[in-house]
Amino acid sequence: MATLGSATKKHKVTIVGSGNWGTTMAKIVAENVKAHPQLFEEKVQMWVYEEEVTIDSKSRHYDPSSPFCKGPQKLSKVINELHENVKYLPNITLPNNVIANPSLEQSAKESTILVFVIPHQFIARICDRLTGNILPFARGISCTKGVDVSDKGIQLFSESIGQRLGIYCGALSGANIASEIAMEKYSETTVAYDPPPMDSRQPTPEGSPSASQMDLINPHKEPGPGSVKLHPLPIDYPALSHENVKKLFHRPYFHVRMVSDVAGVSLGGALKNIVALAAGFMDGLGWGDNAKAAVMRVGLLEMVKFGKKFFASSAQTSTFTEESCGMADVVTSCMGGRNFRCAKLAIEKNISINEVEKTELNGQKLQGTSTAYEVNAFLKSQGLEDEYPLFTAVYNILEGKTKPQDIPSLIEPKE
Amino acid sequence: MATLGSATKKHKVTIVGSGNWGTTMAKIVAENVKAHPQLFEEKVQMWVYEEEVTIDSKSRHYDPSSPFCKGPQKLSKVINELHENVKYLPNITLPNNVIANPSLEQSAKESTILVFVIPHQFIARICDRLTGNILPFARGISCTKGVDVSDKGIQLFSESIGQRLGIYCGALSGANIASEIAMEKYSETTVAYDPPPMDSRQPTPEGSPSASQMDLINPHKEPGPGSVKLHPLPIDYPALSHENVKKLFHRPYFHVRMVSDVAGVSLGGALKNIVALAAGFMDGLGWGDNAKAAVMRVGLLEMVKFGKKFFASSAQTSTFTEESCGMADVVTSCMGGRNFRCAKLAIEKNISINEVEKTELNGQKLQGTSTAYEVNAFLKSQGLEDEYPLFTAVYNILEGKTKPQDIPSLIEPKE
Repeated sequence: MATLGSATKKHKVTIVGSGNWGTTMAKIVAENVKAHPQLFEEKVQMWVYEEEVTIDSKSRHYDPSSPFCKGPQKLSKVINELHENVKYLPNITLPNNVIANPSLEQSAKESTILVFVIPHQFIARICDRLTGNILPFARGISCTKGVDVSDKGIQLFSESIGQRLGIYCGALSGANIASEIAMEKYSETTVAYDPPPMDSRQPTPEGSPSASQMDLINPHKEPGPGSVKLHPLPIDYPALSHENVKKLFHRPYFHVRMVSDVAGVSLGGALKNIVALAAGFMDGLGWGDNAKAAVMRVGLLEMVKFGKKFFASSAQTSTFTEESCGMADVVTSCMGGRNFRCAKLAIEKNISINEVEKTELNGQKLQGTSTAYEVNAFLKSQGLEDEYPLFTAVYNILEGKTKPQDIPSLIEPKE
Repeated sequence: MATLGSATKKHKVTIVGSGNWGTTMAKIVAENVKAHPQLFEEKVQMWVYEEEVTIDSKSRHYDPSSPFCKGPQKLSKVINELHENVKYLPNITLPNNVIANPSLEQSAKESTILVFVIPHQFIARICDRLTGNILPFARGISCTKGVDVSDKGIQLFSESIGQRLGIYCGALSGANIASEIAMEKYSETTVAYDPPPMDSRQPTPEGSPSASQMDLINPHKEPGPGSVKLHPLPIDYPALSHENVKKLFHRPYFHVRMVSDVAGVSLGGALKNIVALAAGFMDGLGWGDNAKAAVMRVGLLEMVKFGKKFFASSAQTSTFTEESCGMADVVTSCMGGRNFRCAKLAIEKNISINEVEKTELNGQKLQGTSTAYEVNAFLKSQGLEDEYPLFTAVYNILEGKTKPQDIPSLIEPKE
């Protein structure tokens, strides 16, 4: 087969994470490795942060005669016995080639592909534990939505992972509500994978680096302090071309589009939450569907502008305007996501988002409010608040410095 | 003022039509001519198809002592007396410079700008009556959504109007639910105006046609059977540049973006209705927001492809993916428009759209079903059904030849 080339080995895959979305990804990947046995090893490791769970009488697995239901059990054991993550993805049967593993290091050992599906606050700690315990030529895919934005700069989660582990890391993001996908309801996603040329097994043009050379990870395409030396994928593994990476994720109910724009895919998942707050404000005012569509459009274009300004050499307009990780994720988030709903509620009840977070989310912060603050701090540091009037308006509304009613005049293009 | 040049005259504006959307446009335009008295004459003519109305006791204008409320009155007289179109836009006060005129020919006489807001089936008849009764150098803007598609070809309504009257005609379309705009709830629109160079008052480059020469209207940029000779706008009128045309429509609550892509603006308003049916099918199946966003995205890209294929020299990707007439109008139509709602109902009740049209719309056809049939006939004639799998799937579902559940596999990109 053309895609195999001289490969004699197969890719081993680990899902790093086992929450709602991580378990869903494990299901998808496990179905796909079975469908492509020439490319992938059959067993898919899923790292489980160990905890104890009890199979109670409401569970479809409850059997009063079974010792398994008599007391607390280890989650990893429950998943491997019942093929279900009863805690984070109940009522969904997992393929039996998903192997729950409570040891992070053991789960990732000898894997060539690491799919990261962890809350962003754990990235640093988990990467520290993996360092030295993974194949040096492993490749990553970050499914953690969003980016690290501060007044110091922006870092994609895929960059953080890549730099900490010294590996190449792409990103997966889209209009993806996990529970719908777990039930195999149709959806789409975008996978950004811009592998070093040596991984694609394409003939190397004369003068350019060959597969035997080391490459640099430099997301902004210029060597910088964050750049790391990259180990080439050995020739005895199948190429990690777009075609083969797609085979790991694409399902009849989960359509994958491959792009090379890691920055665009990562930014989409972060910035859309600011737009969802703005859409919620419009709905809270009772301003109707025209107004909501208008702020979605204006927001999408500010996302494009942000990406092109700060990731000039990589972010593409089309990633935002044409892919699931852009336009479609904005749509889903503005139709009913958490940020949208809480923003709407705040206006309807005439209380601050802060109060909504307290009463509705037990004080947990919304992704959108954190991102709005981070993005604003960054834009302020660049002296560019005025260039992103919707992002700035959302921040000022959260701060109580402006009113949602002022959004139209604030985002009105200057003559 | 720079925009006035050597102008000594002002533009006179007529709104051709006085339904829900026509009356809303009259309100907007009348507010704007007052705001820009250096460019526009103060009175805005609105052609009213005359009929009799009765001010009944439920009306806010009802006064039992007034002879005006004692019996049927002419609609044009009611509008001019009460400054309200009590029949088609009740409870909205119109500026007193909107002049309702029951004579089509009189209303359009000596107007340099004709804004067409009429149902598409009346375009031919109304243009026939206007022929010979308008200024030869008048300019048009078509606010009628959609295009004429048949197996013979596609014609934009702006093209039909332009060719029938021998004038240049642009287009206005966007995420515009009329009643929301009439209440001055925030929204956006897109105005496509690609005037002959002689109208813009820019210095004419040497060798190119000067303002004194006649120009051709040829929407596809090649002289063809539909081309007409165009009369230059006399030099004593203010230029009809993007800047000045924008001043006629832009309001604080109605933001205008000017583009030159008349084809893209017109196609957006037509093709989005097919996408709205697909979104309704997804919701009818209970497939959730991921699936709905996915068909919206796929549909938007088929709209782009259609525009670029059949209006190669004019339609731009960005008109569909970045403007109100494209992405935003798709969003509004898929959130709650009539096509969306009826398609959803058909699936939920397991009946044909035909039956929904009978029971919910008194047999009136949905815009989306007509467009889906017209577009399909055209694509069939071109042998290109397979290139537009979502449009084709919607047609086949309407025909009972395929099931909504098959949409994912039908639109799945081929390897």
